[in-house]
Amino acid sequence: MSFRSGHHFLQLPGPSNVPERILRAMDRAVIDHRGPEFSALVPQLLDGMRELCGASGPVVLFPSSGTGAWEAALTNTLDPGDTLLCAETGQFSNQWAEMARKLGFAVEVLPGDWRHGADPERIAERLRADRGHAIKAVMVVHSETSTGVCSRLPDVRAAIDAAGHPALFLADTVSSLATMEYRQDDWGVDVMVSGSQKGLMLPPGMGINVISIKALEAHKRSRFPRSYFDWTPILELNARGFYPYTSPTLLLFGLREALQMILREEGLANTLARHARLAEATRRAVRAWGLEIVASDPREYANSLTAVFVPDGIDADDVRATILERFDMSLGTCFGQLKGKAFRIGHLGSINELMLAGTLAGVQMGLQLHGIGTTAGVNAALEYLAAPAPTR
Amino acid sequence: MSFRSGHHFLQLPGPSNVPERILRAMDRAVIDHRGPEFSALVPQLLDGMRELCGASGPVVLFPSSGTGAWEAALTNTLDPGDTLLCAETGQFSNQWAEMARKLGFAVEVLPGDWRHGADPERIAERLRADRGHAIKAVMVVHSETSTGVCSRLPDVRAAIDAAGHPALFLADTVSSLATMEYRQDDWGVDVMVSGSQKGLMLPPGMGINVISIKALEAHKRSRFPRSYFDWTPILELNARGFYPYTSPTLLLFGLREALQMILREEGLANTLARHARLAEATRRAVRAWGLEIVASDPREYANSLTAVFVPDGIDADDVRATILERFDMSLGTCFGQLKGKAFRIGHLGSINELMLAGTLAGVQMGLQLHGIGTTAGVNAALEYLAAPAPTR
Repeated sequence: MSFRSGHHFLQLPGPSNVPERILRAMDRAVIDHRGPEFSALVPQLLDGMRELCGASGPVVLFPSSGTGAWEAALTNTLDPGDTLLCAETGQFSNQWAEMARKLGFAVEVLPGDWRHGADPERIAERLRADRGHAIKAVMVVHSETSTGVCSRLPDVRAAIDAAGHPALFLADTVSSLATMEYRQDDWGVDVMVSGSQKGLMLPPGMGINVISIKALEAHKRSRFPRSYFDWTPILELNARGFYPYTSPTLLLFGLREALQMILREEGLANTLARHARLAEATRRAVRAWGLEIVASDPREYANSLTAVFVPDGIDADDVRATILERFDMSLGTCFGQLKGKAFRIGHLGSINELMLAGTLAGVQMGLQLHGIGTTAGVNAALEYLAAPAPTR
Repeated sequence: MSFRSGHHFLQLPGPSNVPERILRAMDRAVIDHRGPEFSALVPQLLDGMRELCGASGPVVLFPSSGTGAWEAALTNTLDPGDTLLCAETGQFSNQWAEMARKLGFAVEVLPGDWRHGADPERIAERLRADRGHAIKAVMVVHSETSTGVCSRLPDVRAAIDAAGHPALFLADTVSSLATMEYRQDDWGVDVMVSGSQKGLMLPPGMGINVISIKALEAHKRSRFPRSYFDWTPILELNARGFYPYTSPTLLLFGLREALQMILREEGLANTLARHARLAEATRRAVRAWGLEIVASDPREYANSLTAVFVPDGIDADDVRATILERFDMSLGTCFGQLKGKAFRIGHLGSINELMLAGTLAGVQMGLQLHGIGTTAGVNAALEYLAAPAPTR
């Protein structure tokens, strides 16, 4: 790698850019994870996470990736061999289903085309047919990070209710948390799964579960063998401000700063409005380039990322490689059926108008170098961004 | 100030963005400034600075601003009341002249229009008329930071030689060092004055003199009262790797990292080519906006910054205020006769194509919000930047 001046544009759909303030908050000595400063910190973080998620139930922070929190959601609430219903929305819904199979669950997948979110009607239909209530949980990815499609969780909740089905509702918010509206209690989500490295603007290393009362009851009955990810010892020790094993202390200081920034300074509503605005600017650029957005239904646009089809005959990963080589920007690759056909632009976390403008400029130049697109994209975004911003 | 997401765009013509690597290099414990690690560091830095400047003479690093290094250039080489010839190029040439007057020198200014560099012919003419060699020094600002105009130092040297005049040649490279070609020995500059916070990508706090043999001889004869900025004790102690007073130790570690980046990794020729390329992209944007560049003569374009006129009836500082408020970007104000009529875009130091694209996007949107310019500017820059980069 030759020398690159200036800063790298990390425009993946996460990990996202860690802001200077959070780096500084983490750039400090580790403290005693059994001492008084630590035990005063923990309840602040759990309260902040509850506020962020619109949740009244317990929050568990794991030293893990988001994938670990997926496993925790399953193993803490279910019994071995249980049947689960998973809505296919893309690579990550499929990986979660695959993890469930490895753990010995019987996973039934509602197939999807990777361009739409979970279909509430098909979920309702399947649950209505499940008269014996064999299905113990419904798994849905909120913002499908592999496609930029957002599932309408309140409608999924309504579908479960309409079917009068007792299944738990498990939702992955890895790339939606703090980028799009999420209300755990109002939406009746039973276990939320998330991670530190996207909307929370932290480095990777922390998995998150937010737990409903119903999920907590299921947890008490669950006979699945588990240890590292077991909620019980964590919740017991959390009550005194501690953890049963060593927490990623500096990530916790980072989380305190992130929550301060989102909840106390920008304000969550403004954070979400900013993501909506930057995402809309991105989509306008994509359309002005004459390209197609992977998400088909405007009700299902994710505000954290936009996946973009390239024309037939072009390898999207070649375009990404050109952009990395020439303009020092990382964009997201696509997976599975979208591999080579689309690329992903991340616009989440610590980002503003001019960072997005630089990002879109890099995409536009990369497209041009492959003979794709027009020069109208960046200007379409700028025209939108120059219009009055929502009042803060 | 309300909360701003993402990073601020610091697009002043300096201080410039301090890259992460340099911040990290400085983020360490202070060491003993009379100890062996320190004395091993100093000669490396002085050698690196000589290499950067194409200089074989001494280099002095002061704990000061660039303004301090201006004073040092004058007080170390001249006698009280000496006559100096200063080419007016803008605010900074005038401030240097004003400083010389405060110090009791007789300063003769060759007036300029702030849109051209020092005029070698007028300098030659004035020096030829000075048959008694009353003029002891010629003061020229290389890249006039207030206007984006670059004086052609080799031509000034030729003019001094053509006049057969023995005056010292003093040059300010505060915003040109490491952004445009500068060759102290080849160009016969006697004292170079610079600072840490622009092309060197460091925080402010270090003033720099680079000294010719001729200037060193003048120094030995000079009877100007001086102490803090006196070269002699510094040069004496530098020979053993020390300073007569406490150096800004962490800035020295930062300078080591900056020299490593410029000389050993990017390569000085590539650093200069990058600045030339980003500056040309900026100028193309300005022209496509239908606006005028303050620098009139293409031979005199500075590659570190571009000053841009706004149309009559518009206050350039209002445009800057809008851009700061709406897009979190700092641009440079103008001074004196350009106040309110122009603004300055810095594109120096740690910067790449997409950082510049974001910068120009912010300018374009700010102009539009004041009913100025067109939407063609950013695209004109991107078209140029998408063309093959110079081989590295």
